[in-house]
Amino acid sequence: MTRENSLSQSTAKRPLAILQKSTKKKVTVRLKNEVEYKGKMENVDSYMNLIMTDAEELREDKVVANYGRVILRGSNVLFIRLETEL
Amino acid sequence: MTRENSLSQSTAKRPLAILQKSTKKKVTVRLKNEVEYKGKMENVDSYMNLIMTDAEELREDKVVANYGRVILRGSNVLFIRLETEL
Amino acid sequence: MTRENSLSQSTAKRPLAILQKSTKKKVTVRLKNEVEYKGKMENVDSYMNLIMTDAEELREDKVVANYGRVILRGSNVLFIRLETEL
Amino acid sequence: MTRENSLSQSTAKRPLAILQKSTKKKVTVRLKNEVEYKGKMENVDSYMNLIMTDAEELREDKVVANYGRVILRGSNVLFIRLETEL
Amino acid sequence: MTRENSLSQSTAKRPLAILQKSTKKKVTVRLKNEVEYKGKMENVDSYMNLIMTDAEELREDKVVANYGRVILRGSNVLFIRLETEL
Amino acid sequence: MTRENSLSQSTAKRPLAILQKSTKKKVTVRLKNEVEYKGKMENVDSYMNLIMTDAEELREDKVVANYGRVILRGSNVLFIRLETEL
Amino acid sequence: MTRENSLSQSTAKRPLAILQKSTKKKVTVRLKNEVEYKGKMENVDSYMNLIMTDAEELREDKVVANYGRVILRGSNVLFIRLETEL
Repeated sequence: MTRENSLSQSTAKRPLAILQKSTKKKVTVRLKNEVEYKGKMENVDSYMNLIMTDAEELREDKVVANYGRVILRGSNVLFIRLETEL
Repeated sequence: MTRENSLSQSTAKRPLAILQKSTKKKVTVRLKNEVEYKGKMENVDSYMNLIMTDAEELREDKVVANYGRVILRGSNVLFIRLETEL
Repeated sequence: MTRENSLSQSTAKRPLAILQKSTKKKVTVRLKNEVEYKGKMENVDSYMNLIMTDAEELREDKVVANYGRVILRGSNVLFIRLETEL
Repeated sequence: MTRENSLSQSTAKRPLAILQKSTKKKVTVRLKNEVEYKGKMENVDSYMNLIMTDAEELREDKVVANYGRVILRGSNVLFIRLETEL
Repeated sequence: MTRENSLSQSTAKRPLAILQKSTKKKVTVRLKNEVEYKGKMENVDSYMNLIMTDAEELREDKVVANYGRVILRGSNVLFIRLETEL
Repeated sequence: MTRENSLSQSTAKRPLAILQKSTKKKVTVRLKNEVEYKGKMENVDSYMNLIMTDAEELREDKVVANYGRVILRGSNVLFIRLETEL
Repeated sequence: MTRENSLSQSTAKRPLAILQKSTKKKVTVRLKNEVEYKGKMENVDSYMNLIMTDAEELREDKVVANYGRVILRGSNVLFIRLETEL
């Protein structure tokens, strides 16, 4: 293991670890069908299944529905945008 | 493990655990083909296979069929909306 | 484990267990391509592979074919409707 | 385990076991792309990979090709119709 | 295990075993996108990844390209036609 | 193990190892839906889940959105272009 | 194990082994979306993830982009054409 390697290990976190640290924060999730869900990410697992609260559903940037609590199946996730800084 | 980390562990539940706690409650399930099923979630497993009773099938917000008991294959699930509070 | 949790464990069965208990009964299976198969479910496994006997194939609610015995591959299943009560 | 359960265990066979017992018999296989293959199922495995001999390829019920021996990849299978009784 | 069962075990080979025995022979591989590759199957693995030599690429039965050596990813395979007898 | 084999082992790195070494550098990620994300790759895992910072979203080479921090699900990745040399 | 079998074992190499031996050589990779990448295959793993250098991107046989270093995700690969002899 090179010096560069150990450095990167210590200063960087893997994507799923960062995702897990962002629970209770606001995120925008885009699914493969291009629909987006914006709200608080209550929790998430390693498969990217996530539970959101007070979520808006957006199609082409317009709010089309609201969800008190919704569980998104991870297999449909395209990306998760973290709205707030760690 | 940081203090923040242990906090989040104790106050939050993973998506599948929350889903499991919502059995016997009313949910709306949207499948990947955009069709929705609204009814009582009798039970669910970690793959999101779920059995629903007294379920309405909705296409574009219109009820098109009714099901006494239906088992949805988890691989088709887009999201599960929890209609009632825990 | 809370009291609610142990209650739900004792009164509810997981989807695949319920499915397994419905063998020898009449079901309607809808596949992802929207075609339906209505007949007796001889048996089923945990992948939702199932063998049906005396099955009608329906497209847009019209019977288009009949099958003495047919094995449906579980990966194509959208849902299984249980026609009779347990 | 209830009495009903042990009964069903003894009188029914799982789909893959029945499929395996139907080797050397005539079947019709429909793939996800709606093309069908009708011929003798020489053998099959648990993934539903199967080898057929003297198979006709049918598109919209018309024979469009003949195959002396062909191996179908199981992941493409929609269903397998068993033409003969056990 | 019934007598029929042991018989079929001894006289039949599973699809992947037959496929493996056909290396060095001519095959036609059709992929899910309906394009075909006709040539010598140098080797194949259990995932149906295969290496072909002197292969023709056919679209709608017309040769559109030639490949000295090409490796097809098994996940795309629809079927493999064995051109020669064992 | 042949001499050629050990040579290639010593002079080449597997794709995921090279990817891991490119964290903290600028990359362009193209997803299966043809949308691209250009920015700093904070980290990546073996599934190609990756976290990017200061990322531009491009559709047909035009910037359509900006993301402070976004986690892309690896299953959607078509390719990752490494913008800088190791 | 028959004599034919041991023969084929000794004279043939499995597809992934041959692929691995072709690192540092020129290849053309076609993805499922029909886009091709032509360049030097720096390395590849058993999932067919591969890193290419000095790669041209071709759409309908026209070069539309150039990549100094790009990592293609194996799940998208249709085939890999080996341009040079072993």
